[in-house]
Amino acid sequence: MEFSQLGQSELKALQNELMKAYDEVKAQNLKLDMSRGKPCPEQLDLSLGMLECKEYTMDGIDCRNYGGVDGLPSAKALFAEFLEVTPEEIIVGGNSSLAMMYDTIARAMMFGVVGSEQPWGKLPKVKFLCPSPGYDRHFAICELMGIEMITVAMNDDGPDMDTVEKLVAEDDSIKGIWCVPKYSNPGGVVYSDEVVDRLASMPTKAPDFRIFWDNAYTVHHLTDQPARLKNIMDACKAAGHPERVFIFGSTAKITFAGAGVAAMAASKKNIDVLRKQLGIQTIGPDKMNQLRHVWFFKDMAGIEAHMKKHAAILRPKFEKVLEILETELGGTGTAEWSKPAGGYFISLNTMEGCAKRVVKLAAEAGVVLTNAGATYPYGNDPQDRNIRIAPTFPPMEELEKAMRLVALCIKLASVEKLLAK
Amino acid sequence: MEFSQLGQSELKALQNELMKAYDEVKAQNLKLDMSRGKPCPEQLDLSLGMLECKEYTMDGIDCRNYGGVDGLPSAKALFAEFLEVTPEEIIVGGNSSLAMMYDTIARAMMFGVVGSEQPWGKLPKVKFLCPSPGYDRHFAICELMGIEMITVAMNDDGPDMDTVEKLVAEDDSIKGIWCVPKYSNPGGVVYSDEVVDRLASMPTKAPDFRIFWDNAYTVHHLTDQPARLKNIMDACKAAGHPERVFIFGSTAKITFAGAGVAAMAASKKNIDVLRKQLGIQTIGPDKMNQLRHVWFFKDMAGIEAHMKKHAAILRPKFEKVLEILETELGGTGTAEWSKPAGGYFISLNTMEGCAKRVVKLAAEAGVVLTNAGATYPYGNDPQDRNIRIAPTFPPMEELEKAMRLVALCIKLASVEKLLAK
Repeated sequence: MEFSQLGQSELKALQNELMKAYDEVKAQNLKLDMSRGKPCPEQLDLSLGMLECKEYTMDGIDCRNYGGVDGLPSAKALFAEFLEVTPEEIIVGGNSSLAMMYDTIARAMMFGVVGSEQPWGKLPKVKFLCPSPGYDRHFAICELMGIEMITVAMNDDGPDMDTVEKLVAEDDSIKGIWCVPKYSNPGGVVYSDEVVDRLASMPTKAPDFRIFWDNAYTVHHLTDQPARLKNIMDACKAAGHPERVFIFGSTAKITFAGAGVAAMAASKKNIDVLRKQLGIQTIGPDKMNQLRHVWFFKDMAGIEAHMKKHAAILRPKFEKVLEILETELGGTGTAEWSKPAGGYFISLNTMEGCAKRVVKLAAEAGVVLTNAGATYPYGNDPQDRNIRIAPTFPPMEELEKAMRLVALCIKLASVEKLLAK
Repeated sequence: MEFSQLGQSELKALQNELMKAYDEVKAQNLKLDMSRGKPCPEQLDLSLGMLECKEYTMDGIDCRNYGGVDGLPSAKALFAEFLEVTPEEIIVGGNSSLAMMYDTIARAMMFGVVGSEQPWGKLPKVKFLCPSPGYDRHFAICELMGIEMITVAMNDDGPDMDTVEKLVAEDDSIKGIWCVPKYSNPGGVVYSDEVVDRLASMPTKAPDFRIFWDNAYTVHHLTDQPARLKNIMDACKAAGHPERVFIFGSTAKITFAGAGVAAMAASKKNIDVLRKQLGIQTIGPDKMNQLRHVWFFKDMAGIEAHMKKHAAILRPKFEKVLEILETELGGTGTAEWSKPAGGYFISLNTMEGCAKRVVKLAAEAGVVLTNAGATYPYGNDPQDRNIRIAPTFPPMEELEKAMRLVALCIKLASVEKLLAK
């Protein structure tokens, strides 16, 4: 039943019916939070074995003591494999890759990067390209720093590269682009080889342009056919722009979300500069936690085997969400949604102008969703359509309840919209 | 035997004798590092019990997961007691208090602090007062940030307050002062009540002046009579300047140097602003490590009991250094040194113009000391006198060898100096 085909009286009748169902759910006093991409306790339990680690020496280093600003050698080796670079292109840090991204931008603002004529913060204007829908916390960093964000459309194979190429070629105040290249947040998009190559090779007016490559979900597959992402570092080197990319990753959604290990990768030239600055900034990362991770996983195969256990927990949750969306909304023309093969989110688009209303209706019935608009720069989704669904944290039963309510709210908001036309 | 009383020929003879002894030590091919204030393995062993912790829930919070940008409530309570403030005046962070200091200055440069008219980085000039000898890593942060450092003399009771008061009253580009107020690095000075009160109450031309109160050694006593430091937060509040102070501390030299927990304290108004910025900067600190610390110590009494074990290891090392200095250099007039009641260093002053030479001679015989000059801004000790001695890390036997060599080098450099007159 395509909602847009219904007449006024049919819509009215439908609205009454939906409103009744909505009030019934409301009476249940639900209190569910689907706002953030948090792992569930069962996922966290998968890494409890890490707490059995009693070691404190690795690579001949007493990891309890000071030293080693760029990370424990064994951790560097493991993360080099993880991020598909060489160990000399890696810095292994603390527990938060977001903090490493913030820091990288803060340093660029204060000191510039390799190739900068002056610190970005001294320029009259700094702009970043923000493929959207995207990750709200990336955008929040830009907003805090006073970096102007330019929204670029996301296609099924990555950012709209025609627009990206055009913009970076003509405006030297555009210093960066945010990318979540694999199982993107929230759309689940995997960048195509062509997009990776075009990002690596495109001429940029700014000589110090940087790709912020947040490879947050590189091993976070939901199916047995892992997506393949072209190696951006290799592509940048091949294109003669080895300094162009900063790559980020972490074990936040592999071991413990709040107590994982984060790492970044870049060309040796970039890393040499960063290491020097880091040496002033800190006495070094928590090597004990790095040791604990290396001890637990041993190698990349260990991480991959571990990720299959995550997938076994998460796949049914994603399937449940997709099943409910299909059952409740299929054929209504009120929404379309991604069917991701990995990552942490499902991206849903309502009819134009309905997303905020849906989130509000859901909240009033006790289900907190990510704010509508959060997936766009400045929290402003120009079409008010996009909703990010985070299926990972709630138990199955709550997830089902929450999603049935979300579907109901989408139908309600759509009917309201159609009646208002 | 006062060296300065010796005649040319006596000095020559002494030089020959010392040179012979020096060459003998050199032939031993020593390889000792006394450059940094690192705890020794026996000290680190004191906290191995922390690795027995299997808990992951505290305060009803799953510490494995995301959340809690200002720290675990129980950790905030413990650090509030540790830094003598209230829990609402605390942010508990990652493993490095130095990183928190860097971050605090970086944020001030990029965004300003409570009371700033604009970000410090937008001003034509930012200056910090640097009581010296002081901590080289504080100075390195200023240098990286382009903050001009003004050296202020350290007296036995803290910085020379007449100078400090005069400077801050007349120059609004002076935005901060570095202080290690208890068992200072390197002099072991404990600030007097009067100095604390004058710092808290002095009029400053900059409305957003800040005291960076690095209370790194607050519980690091070497004797059974712990020094008492007046509470700077109370003093600032009493003086009507509650926003003036940022306090820092950590367990780096209590548990694991590289894997401790750092915290900062400030007025609620300061903390509210910092918490908001931190919420954009990171997904939160490693709560697992915070939990581990709270679990291990339980409370302040637990920390204090633990510190007695550190003192039992360190006291003999400090005593050995002082004994050697006294035996070898007492009455020679070639050096004077601090006799600290806590902290990690002994500060030694050679005759004018000898420190660099001593460090070079020691290095050539296989003993690495902290660079001469490191305890002054820009690495420039105007009188070339100060050497920082770090007795904590080397085993007793090595410490003894190293210190005998250092004493020998001091005598040698002094004779050279006197001969050149």
